[in-house]
Amino acid sequence: MLIVMKNKATKTQIKSVVKAIEKLSLKAEQLPGAQRTAIGVTGNKDYIDQGRILNFPGVKEIIHVTKKYKLVSREFKPQNSKVRINKDITFGGKAPVIIAGPCSIESYEQLLEIARKVKALGADMLRGGAYKPRTSPYSFQGLEEEGLEIMSKVSKKIGIPTISEITSTDQLDLFKKHTDMIQIGARNMHNFDLLKKVAKLDKPILLKRGMSATMEEFLLAAEYILNEGNPNVVLCERGIRTFEQSTRNILDLNTVALIKEESHLPIIVDPSHAAGRYDLVAPLAKAGLAVGADGLIVEVHNDPKNALSDGGQSLTFDSFKSLIKEL
Amino acid sequence: MLIVMKNKATKTQIKSVVKAIEKLSLKAEQLPGAQRTAIGVTGNKDYIDQGRILNFPGVKEIIHVTKKYKLVSREFKPQNSKVRINKDITFGGKAPVIIAGPCSIESYEQLLEIARKVKALGADMLRGGAYKPRTSPYSFQGLEEEGLEIMSKVSKKIGIPTISEITSTDQLDLFKKHTDMIQIGARNMHNFDLLKKVAKLDKPILLKRGMSATMEEFLLAAEYILNEGNPNVVLCERGIRTFEQSTRNILDLNTVALIKEESHLPIIVDPSHAAGRYDLVAPLAKAGLAVGADGLIVEVHNDPKNALSDGGQSLTFDSFKSLIKEL
Amino acid sequence: MLIVMKNKATKTQIKSVVKAIEKLSLKAEQLPGAQRTAIGVTGNKDYIDQGRILNFPGVKEIIHVTKKYKLVSREFKPQNSKVRINKDITFGGKAPVIIAGPCSIESYEQLLEIARKVKALGADMLRGGAYKPRTSPYSFQGLEEEGLEIMSKVSKKIGIPTISEITSTDQLDLFKKHTDMIQIGARNMHNFDLLKKVAKLDKPILLKRGMSATMEEFLLAAEYILNEGNPNVVLCERGIRTFEQSTRNILDLNTVALIKEESHLPIIVDPSHAAGRYDLVAPLAKAGLAVGADGLIVEVHNDPKNALSDGGQSLTFDSFKSLIKEL
Amino acid sequence: MLIVMKNKATKTQIKSVVKAIEKLSLKAEQLPGAQRTAIGVTGNKDYIDQGRILNFPGVKEIIHVTKKYKLVSREFKPQNSKVRINKDITFGGKAPVIIAGPCSIESYEQLLEIARKVKALGADMLRGGAYKPRTSPYSFQGLEEEGLEIMSKVSKKIGIPTISEITSTDQLDLFKKHTDMIQIGARNMHNFDLLKKVAKLDKPILLKRGMSATMEEFLLAAEYILNEGNPNVVLCERGIRTFEQSTRNILDLNTVALIKEESHLPIIVDPSHAAGRYDLVAPLAKAGLAVGADGLIVEVHNDPKNALSDGGQSLTFDSFKSLIKEL
Repeated sequence: MLIVMKNKATKTQIKSVVKAIEKLSLKAEQLPGAQRTAIGVTGNKDYIDQGRILNFPGVKEIIHVTKKYKLVSREFKPQNSKVRINKDITFGGKAPVIIAGPCSIESYEQLLEIARKVKALGADMLRGGAYKPRTSPYSFQGLEEEGLEIMSKVSKKIGIPTISEITSTDQLDLFKKHTDMIQIGARNMHNFDLLKKVAKLDKPILLKRGMSATMEEFLLAAEYILNEGNPNVVLCERGIRTFEQSTRNILDLNTVALIKEESHLPIIVDPSHAAGRYDLVAPLAKAGLAVGADGLIVEVHNDPKNALSDGGQSLTFDSFKSLIKEL
Repeated sequence: MLIVMKNKATKTQIKSVVKAIEKLSLKAEQLPGAQRTAIGVTGNKDYIDQGRILNFPGVKEIIHVTKKYKLVSREFKPQNSKVRINKDITFGGKAPVIIAGPCSIESYEQLLEIARKVKALGADMLRGGAYKPRTSPYSFQGLEEEGLEIMSKVSKKIGIPTISEITSTDQLDLFKKHTDMIQIGARNMHNFDLLKKVAKLDKPILLKRGMSATMEEFLLAAEYILNEGNPNVVLCERGIRTFEQSTRNILDLNTVALIKEESHLPIIVDPSHAAGRYDLVAPLAKAGLAVGADGLIVEVHNDPKNALSDGGQSLTFDSFKSLIKEL
Repeated sequence: MLIVMKNKATKTQIKSVVKAIEKLSLKAEQLPGAQRTAIGVTGNKDYIDQGRILNFPGVKEIIHVTKKYKLVSREFKPQNSKVRINKDITFGGKAPVIIAGPCSIESYEQLLEIARKVKALGADMLRGGAYKPRTSPYSFQGLEEEGLEIMSKVSKKIGIPTISEITSTDQLDLFKKHTDMIQIGARNMHNFDLLKKVAKLDKPILLKRGMSATMEEFLLAAEYILNEGNPNVVLCERGIRTFEQSTRNILDLNTVALIKEESHLPIIVDPSHAAGRYDLVAPLAKAGLAVGADGLIVEVHNDPKNALSDGGQSLTFDSFKSLIKEL
Repeated sequence: MLIVMKNKATKTQIKSVVKAIEKLSLKAEQLPGAQRTAIGVTGNKDYIDQGRILNFPGVKEIIHVTKKYKLVSREFKPQNSKVRINKDITFGGKAPVIIAGPCSIESYEQLLEIARKVKALGADMLRGGAYKPRTSPYSFQGLEEEGLEIMSKVSKKIGIPTISEITSTDQLDLFKKHTDMIQIGARNMHNFDLLKKVAKLDKPILLKRGMSATMEEFLLAAEYILNEGNPNVVLCERGIRTFEQSTRNILDLNTVALIKEESHLPIIVDPSHAAGRYDLVAPLAKAGLAVGADGLIVEVHNDPKNALSDGGQSLTFDSFKSLIKEL
C-alpha cells in the first residue's frame, strides 16, 4: 500500500500517519519526492483494508499494491487447475468443453430431443434453466422443481452430464440431487450468501461474471467459494455492460486473456448471452476459443421461434452443427 | 411493439410474421416505408416478451414501445406515493427524510453515541450495517445478529427509527423483529428471491439501485416488491459504475429526475457511496435534494479514522452538522 | 512512480530495473514486502512516461503517483482563477454566469428575438451554434460564416457578449472577429491541434469535456491551452456516456465537485446536452449550481417545435423564466 | 419513425402531431393501443431529424427505425468492398492484411531495421507515428515532418507500403506525398473537418473507432468520407472504454461481428491499443481474426524497453514472429 500525502502535508501529519501504520504492526517507509511525500507500507501478508486512512489530515490518496484475492491467483498456485465432471470431461484439460442446451427447460420431450441432438453433434454437457432470474416479474420464471426432475431423467436416459442455474438457497437440496454442476448466474455473482452455501455442496460450480463486475470482483467471488473449501470452480465470461448497445453485452476477451495469466482457474465463454442474437454466436464462440478459453456454453433450441425465453439468441440444430464443425 | 423487416424481406416472410402475431390475439398493422416494411403490433395490455420473433426470416429488429413495469409507473398511479415510517416521518412528504449513521455497527457504545448525536443534529432515522456484503471474503463481515440487537436497543433508548441491510433470506425473522425499515443493497437488487421474501414481511423497504442497473431494471426490481402486495418501497440512487473512476461511483441525478416523472415512488440519494470520499459528500447531498430527491442516506461516524469499514467516506459529527445547516 | 515486481522476480531482475531508473537520474528505493518487492521511484519533477518499463523481465505492473497535469492544478495555484469576459461578467466570481441561446443560429430575426428575451430574463451571455459538429453528414450543419456575422450584429444591438463553437482551424479568424468567448466542443476536446491554435487567439475559452474523457484527460486538455500561455479557460461538464441511456448523457457532478478541489479553473455545467429532453433541464441545472458549479449553459429557443436542431432539449422563454426564478 | 404519445394524450394533441408530420410531406398512421396511441411515420427516404417533435404536448418519446447511415450499409451495397493498396495487398480480399511497426518513428535506422524485419516475418504494411496525439502536452509528440520523410525513404528502400496517423489539416500535403494509406485516429473520429478534407486526398483511409463511439457513430464517420466521394475506407476496432480497467480498452468483437453484417466495408482490429500490454496482444489478435476481421495492426519495436512511447504494448521481433506463426 502506498499512501500519497498532499504537497502541503506537514511533518506532523506525516508522522501521525506513520504511527497509525506502525500500530498495525506494519512498516512505514517515507519516500520524499520533489512535489510530495509518499509512504510505502510493507510487512503485510494480505490486502490492507484501510480506507479510513483517507481521513487523516494531509492524506491525498491511497494506492493499493497487494491484490485482495489469494487462493484463486496464479501466484498462490502456478499450474492450471482442472475441474473434472466425470472421467471424460475435464475443464482445463486438453480439449475445450462444450455445453449446449435450451435457455429454459420447457418439457420432457423438448429437453430429450435437444439433449439427444446436441450430444450427437458433439456437446459434452447439457444446459437448461429451471429457475429463471427474469428482470420482470411478469416473464416466464421456469418450470422450477419439475424442470430439474426432467433434466435429471433426460440426463440418465441420454448419458450426458447437466448444469442448471440456482437462484435461491431454498433450492440447495434439489440441485445437489439433480445436477452435475451448478451455475451461479451473473445477477447472483455478488450474492455472497448463495456463493458460500453452494460452495459447501461439494459440486463443481460454474460462476458467471456479473454484468459490471471488474476482474478483481469476479475473482473475489470465486475466492469466496475456494475459501469455503471447494476448489472446483469454472469461471464464465458472458459479456459486460457498456455504452455500446447495438448488441446485448460486449464479450470481454481482454479479461479472459488476463485471467488466464492471473488465475489458475479454468474459464469458458458464453457467446449466446453476450451476443443476444443468434447470428453473432458462432463468430464470438470462435473468438473465445482463439483467445484461450477452456470451453463454451451456448443456447441451442429445437424450435427457437417458439421458445419460452431468449429465443432470439438460440442456435438451431443446424447452426450448432456448423459451429461445431468450424471449431 | 414494432417489428422492423429487412429491406429485402419478401411478402411471404412479412405474412408469416403477421400470422404469428395474430396467433397471440394481437393486431398486426403493416407500415410500408420507402426502404422497408415495419409491422406495428397493438392490442397488447402488457409488455410482449417475444425475443423469438427475431428468428423469423426477414426480421431485422424488434423495438419495444410498452414498458415492462406497471404498478410502479405514474401512468398506473399519477399521484406521489408516501411511505410512512411513523407519525413524524414520511418519505415523499413535504420535508426530505435524513438517514444517518455508521457504515457498520461496531458496538453498543459506538452506535449509542452516534445515534444520540445525529438525532440531535437533525437526522430522522438511524442507519447501521449488521450484515456487510463485502467483495472480499477476508474483509470485516459485520456483527450480524448481535449488531441488529444493538441497533434495536439503541433505537428504543434514543427514540429513533432504524434501517439496516438484509443479505440473506435466513435473516428475515431477525429483521422483522429488530428494524423499522429494511434495506436491499445494490448487490442484491437482482436477487429476486430475496426481493419477493422481504416484500412479504410487510415492512417499508429501501431498494438501492444496482451499480449498473438501468432505470427500467431498477423500477422492475421495485415492481417485484409491489407485485407481492407491498407498496411501501423507497428507491435509492447510490451512484453508477462508469469509465470515470476518479470517484467511486457517479451519482446519476439524470435518472433521479426521470424517475420522479416515470414513477410515483419516493426516491432518495446516497452521496456517501457515490462519492467514496468524505469531502464530496456535502456537495453531492445538496445536488441530490436540488434535483428533487425525497431524502438522503449518509454515513456518519464518531471516529472515521478507526472505523471498521468505509471510514474514508464517513462524515464526522462536525461535518454532518454543517451539512444539515447548509441544507 | 511505483514499480511492482512479480513475486518470483529475481534479484538480478530487480537490479536491472533499478539501474534503468538511475540512468534517468532518478532515485529507486526498494520496498521488500512479504509477497513481492516494489520499487519506489522519486526525484522526478514531472510525470514519468515510462510504459516501456513494463517490458523488463520480472515487472508486474506500474503505478503512477504524480499526476500528469500541472498548470491547471490547485497545487500549482491554490486560489480560484477568474475568467473575465467584461466588467460585469466573470466566471469564478461571486455569481454564477448564465449562458443561454439556441442550439443553432437560424436567422437574424430568430437570434435577435432570443437574445433580447434571454437578456431580459437574466442571461449574462448569448450562445448559438454557427458550425455544428453533427454525427451524420446529412444533418443541418449550421449557417457557418453567416451565422457568426448574425451573432456579432445581434450582440452589438442587444449588448450581450457571445459564445459559439469552433470546429476547424480554418475558422480561427472569424471567431477572433465575431465572438467574445470560443467554445471547444466535446467532440474536439482531444483535437490537440485545435486546442493549441485556439489558445493562441488570446480569447477566453469554454472547454467542454469529451463524452468519455476521464477527469485527468479533461484537465490535460485544459493544460494544453494553459501551456500555450492562455490562462482564460472555463471548463464545462455536459454529461458522460454510460450504460444508462434513458437520458442522453449522465451529468457527472462527482467530477465537478472533485475538479473544484483539484483545479483552480472555473467550471460550469450544461444541463441541456446532459438531459437531452427539456423537462429535465431545470432540475439538473439546480443540481449543478448546488454542487458548486460557477455557471450554466442552457439551450433556449423561441419556437422549439420548429428548431433546426436539438429542439427536444430546448427550453421555451417561459420555462427559462421559471428556471431563473427558481435559481 | 414511431412517435409514442402519453397515455393521457388528447385527440387534439394527437391531431396536431399528425399535422406537423404531414407538413413535412410524410405519412402519419395512428396505431391506437390499449394503453396509448403511437403514430407511425412513413414515406421518408432518409433518417428524420425531428428531435423537436418531443416538444409537442402529449408526446412521450420518439423511436427511430431508419438508420442514419446509408452509403456504408450493406443494404445499399450488399457485396463486400475491397480496398486495394497495391497489386498484392487488398483489404477485404482473401488473406488478412497484417500491418506492423513501431508506435513512433524514432530515427531512420530504427525504422529501417523494424521495416526489414517485419516484412521478412510476413507483415504486409509498415505503420509508424510521426504526429502523436498525446493526452499530455509534455509527452513526446513525434518527429513530425522528419518522421514522414524517414518513413517514405524506408518504404522505398524496403518496398513496403506505409500508413501513418494524421492529426491536423495542415499536414494534408505531407501525407499525400509520403504515405500510402492515412490513418484517422480514435481521438479524431469525430473531427468532421479532418474527415472531409482527408477524404478528398483520394488515398485509402484507415478509420479508427472513437473510444466511446457507438457502432452507428462509427459508421457515420465513415459515411462522411464516402459522402465526399472516397469509397476506400477500412474500419479499425481498437478497444472501447468501459468500467473495466484491468486492461486499457476492451476489444469489442461483438461490434466487429455486427459490422460485418451491417456494412460492406472491411474492418481490422488493433490488439496492441486494446490490450495496452504486450503479453495480451497475441491472444487478442487471434480472436480478432477468428471473429472475421480482415486484418490486424500491431505495434512491433526493435527495443521496447527504450521505446519513446507505448513501449509497454509493443511486441519484440521474436514475439511478432511467433504470433505470425500461430495465425
